[in-house]
Amino acid sequence: MRIARFSIDGNVAFGAVEGEAPPGSTEGLVLDIIKGIPFADFELSGTKVPLNKVRLLPPVLPNKIVGIGRNYAEHAAELGNEIPDTPVAFFKPSTSVTGPGDPIEYPSFSQEVHYEAELAVVIGRMCREVPRERVADVILGYTCANDVTARDVQKRENQWARAKGFDTSCPLGPWVETGIDLARAADLTLQCTVNGEQRQLGRTSDMIRPIEDLIVHISEAMTLLPGDVVLTGTPAGVGPLNVGDEVAVTIEGIGTLTNKVIKRG
Amino acid sequence: MRIARFSIDGNVAFGAVEGEAPPGSTEGLVLDIIKGIPFADFELSGTKVPLNKVRLLPPVLPNKIVGIGRNYAEHAAELGNEIPDTPVAFFKPSTSVTGPGDPIEYPSFSQEVHYEAELAVVIGRMCREVPRERVADVILGYTCANDVTARDVQKRENQWARAKGFDTSCPLGPWVETGIDLARAADLTLQCTVNGEQRQLGRTSDMIRPIEDLIVHISEAMTLLPGDVVLTGTPAGVGPLNVGDEVAVTIEGIGTLTNKVIKRG
Repeated sequence: MRIARFSIDGNVAFGAVEGEAPPGSTEGLVLDIIKGIPFADFELSGTKVPLNKVRLLPPVLPNKIVGIGRNYAEHAAELGNEIPDTPVAFFKPSTSVTGPGDPIEYPSFSQEVHYEAELAVVIGRMCREVPRERVADVILGYTCANDVTARDVQKRENQWARAKGFDTSCPLGPWVETGIDLARAADLTLQCTVNGEQRQLGRTSDMIRPIEDLIVHISEAMTLLPGDVVLTGTPAGVGPLNVGDEVAVTIEGIGTLTNKVIKRG
Repeated sequence: MRIARFSIDGNVAFGAVEGEAPPGSTEGLVLDIIKGIPFADFELSGTKVPLNKVRLLPPVLPNKIVGIGRNYAEHAAELGNEIPDTPVAFFKPSTSVTGPGDPIEYPSFSQEVHYEAELAVVIGRMCREVPRERVADVILGYTCANDVTARDVQKRENQWARAKGFDTSCPLGPWVETGIDLARAADLTLQCTVNGEQRQLGRTSDMIRPIEDLIVHISEAMTLLPGDVVLTGTPAGVGPLNVGDEVAVTIEGIGTLTNKVIKRG
């Protein structure tokens, strides 16, 4: 099931996305409004609205986002980094989240903002010290993410709070796909285009550490909450975004997350 | 005014702390329950409860906590670090917060957990790109923090999400003092004791970058929300905590934050 979050007539709701649309389009898709929230038992209301009549929101409002750096060997190499002994875990704050179709605001303190297409894991239940064999149980589903990074700031500053934590640096969407299991999540094509040109093309099977390892590693230290998001790293091909660019992250079996880069107002 | 957050009969409330008590004691202190929340106009209800009849909670529930590393020269030196060109900003997640009197759980993945006494700035209003001369306007007040750090993990892992983000690694409290202005905040004694023995003794006047600079630096990148917390760095003298230790952070004009270290259950 694809679960979207959206606003309609000033209210916020979750809905199950029904129908099929051509790649990058929402034409013909319909939302069946969810009674309740997707982190507990819920029912479909049967009340349906065309998806292109509503504004999609970030599919979850994470309390925290844990990113993983250097999880694809070719990407680590392209930035001149070695493959780390342990996963490089960092945070993006909730204020960095922006939705599908929403702008990425180019921050004033950087001259080199990069896209990073990533598979995002959405946590479904509160958990800590998750054993490897229970990882599937704590995952609600998957969505597309763009781990937008001020590369120049990242190089200058020892910790990445500003480089990866500025407002709108975490586009998420368009919805959470709950019908993908761990085996399938570990073998998906992910792609990033800028203005329609392909810049990144990778497979999640190239992750250095698989999703199970990442959830074990993070939850060893901290409680994960429903709606928290784990970003699983980006493949090779990262590069600059400029004001006016349209950047799209497409993941096989999930969908396309598109955002336009604007000057911060 | 000292604003505490507490639970009473299963409800959570804010209250103004009245009265004076000997250092480290709450004997004789009374809470005047606040109508509303301290981030907007509020009134005191006149309904009073003895502070030692309630359970104090973390004085705020931050959406995010932004820490600053290496902001005292002697502390940077004791860990063998140079003074950075720009403030070292990092995040602690909301799940790391714990309250006054609550335990610090020694995490399983570290053998070297350190205390770090810090002055914490509590943000009072939503803000971004705060000019230096407006910093005072966005601050609600100050509290004591312990930026508990898994030092061995911090040395091993490039980013500090696990080293400084584990559950209970951010004790805050005992309350927010709103009667301190920026000039006074820049000249307070802060102290850390372990089992009653002094381990850290510093003055906020020794910060490399003052509070104004930190808020400008952080808010240049990201929106700060009411209740968000900025940790301002720790003075020299950091060292290990062990299970069974009682660690206390005392800041002049604010109060004492005491936590006991327990084995994670």
